[in-house]
Amino acid sequence: MKIVLDAMGGDYAPQVTVEGGVLAAQELGLEVVLVGREAAIRRELAKYETRGPSLSVVHASQVIEMEDKPATAVKAKKDSSMIVGLDLVKKGEAQAFVSAGNSGGVMVAALFRLGRTKGIQRPALCAILVSREGPLCILDVGANTDCRALYLLQFAIMGSVYMERVLGIEEPRVGIVSTGEEEGKGSQLVLEAYELLKRSGLNFIGNVEGKDLFSGLADVVVTDGFTGNVMIKLAEGMAGFFSGIIEEEIKRGPLTALGGLLAKPAFRQVRSRLDYSEYGGAPLLGVEGVVIVAHGRSNPKAIKNALRMAKQAIEGGMIEAIREEIERRVEGERGR
Amino acid sequence: MKIVLDAMGGDYAPQVTVEGGVLAAQELGLEVVLVGREAAIRRELAKYETRGPSLSVVHASQVIEMEDKPATAVKAKKDSSMIVGLDLVKKGEAQAFVSAGNSGGVMVAALFRLGRTKGIQRPALCAILVSREGPLCILDVGANTDCRALYLLQFAIMGSVYMERVLGIEEPRVGIVSTGEEEGKGSQLVLEAYELLKRSGLNFIGNVEGKDLFSGLADVVVTDGFTGNVMIKLAEGMAGFFSGIIEEEIKRGPLTALGGLLAKPAFRQVRSRLDYSEYGGAPLLGVEGVVIVAHGRSNPKAIKNALRMAKQAIEGGMIEAIREEIERRVEGERGR
Repeated sequence: MKIVLDAMGGDYAPQVTVEGGVLAAQELGLEVVLVGREAAIRRELAKYETRGPSLSVVHASQVIEMEDKPATAVKAKKDSSMIVGLDLVKKGEAQAFVSAGNSGGVMVAALFRLGRTKGIQRPALCAILVSREGPLCILDVGANTDCRALYLLQFAIMGSVYMERVLGIEEPRVGIVSTGEEEGKGSQLVLEAYELLKRSGLNFIGNVEGKDLFSGLADVVVTDGFTGNVMIKLAEGMAGFFSGIIEEEIKRGPLTALGGLLAKPAFRQVRSRLDYSEYGGAPLLGVEGVVIVAHGRSNPKAIKNALRMAKQAIEGGMIEAIREEIERRVEGERGR
Repeated sequence: MKIVLDAMGGDYAPQVTVEGGVLAAQELGLEVVLVGREAAIRRELAKYETRGPSLSVVHASQVIEMEDKPATAVKAKKDSSMIVGLDLVKKGEAQAFVSAGNSGGVMVAALFRLGRTKGIQRPALCAILVSREGPLCILDVGANTDCRALYLLQFAIMGSVYMERVLGIEEPRVGIVSTGEEEGKGSQLVLEAYELLKRSGLNFIGNVEGKDLFSGLADVVVTDGFTGNVMIKLAEGMAGFFSGIIEEEIKRGPLTALGGLLAKPAFRQVRSRLDYSEYGGAPLLGVEGVVIVAHGRSNPKAIKNALRMAKQAIEGGMIEAIREEIERRVEGERGR
């Protein structure tokens, strides 16, 4: 199995990306294709014992930078690691693409080079979070700021396929983000999407409020890309806010400081339970190829786990399953 | 200063509401008018030494229950504590109204009985949160699920008046919730509202992402009532989620448990810093009277603090200030 890694993508590229790629090749038995500036990649690769694992390098002279405007950069930088890497997937020379680079850039480039899956109106970025009960996915978290009800239905279908085929959750429970539990609460968009979800044949459980996101009520949480983006960034910010004030308060007195020291292993556990790098990335669903968007601040472990995500998506036949489910569930809806 | 308290509103009414009202009368020197079923209120009042503080009771035979549909209940229950209480404000017999009851009911009843402030298109519910730097207000958090750009401008004006007049923050910094820091990011609604905010003369600092809500970047955070509602409920849910997993992990081993015990005062401090009952309630801005919506689960201290909020809003001349600012800043916008 061959997976392309955008070696130039991310805040600490290519150091961290190359190290993550090496880990994935060693531990997950993947063939990793590192795409980017060859000399820089080879310099990093030289630091590792890489005779065993299967790592190759494909040169690309340009980089879509974090501060680049996605649409412009994708058009202008034809020899960027993103475009060259995605083209390898398009040509069938690799089965998936992973990048920790400019996430808007990855989305635009993937749409542009791989195209949408037939029947899908808008691809969606799907974040994997961990609730008290286990993993859940929320989508869209940023690909589409303005949505229609039918998009939300498609997000629900794609999210369900992902949870079932890739994470092995049977009949995933689907909820829609709203302002109250009861049917009839929410914006015009939510009310319309609710109707579509109700008759979709999915395991639809109704509205989910912000407070329920981490309670494990639903496995798939659908929302428009504006709300979803605000939600995951708020969750991220709050994690930092909490840790910050706990640390501040613990340091205030000698006894509480001692207590904090003793409780350290517990805090470490808490952190690892909240550590999104365990999952490594956000799959971009609805394009004709497996694409994983990793966090710009990814460490090598997160890069490795993003590659693992790609591997699982390939093994689960995710793309084919999305294609089939969309055809089965949406075409009927359109004919209405 | 006379403030009406809906004695029947909230999950633990009238016990908790009456106790909160007594505290407010004793500690804040307010005249509190308890509205609701007189016999039940008097039974609760009998538990306290109330000769000193000034507490009166006004009978209302009906109650708008938590599960009632707001619009229907407000029309049907003309002798409810909410309607009777708001009418006292309308007639000028009291200067503010506080309720921990059905929040949709309070909003509809207030709009219906007090009316909108001239020039305001939609009243907004404004939540007061505490960041690392101090208090901030976010609005709308639930009065309007679907919004237009002009509403958001009006929310910004009302929030600024609130922070300046009631919480004493000079030239409050106004941000708008969006999906990226740079101008040009966000939904259609955000882009339009951004333009209005830019030329409003308010201290507009631009986009604020979910992760910045608690960083103290802005004093007033505006958003549509759907996103705002989801955000504050997510924040509430995450506080519970964090405390839950920290407790779980600390209890796992004897040493971490001991550490947790020693660090307890620090945790207590953390909780009190996150304790929304410190502020007590959410002002409903844009109606012709001071109205504070308290949390349904309010304890007596939260009720007292909601009454304090009402007192501060009266002292700050909030209603008049909103009227003036809306006229000054919005009428020009309309004339364009």
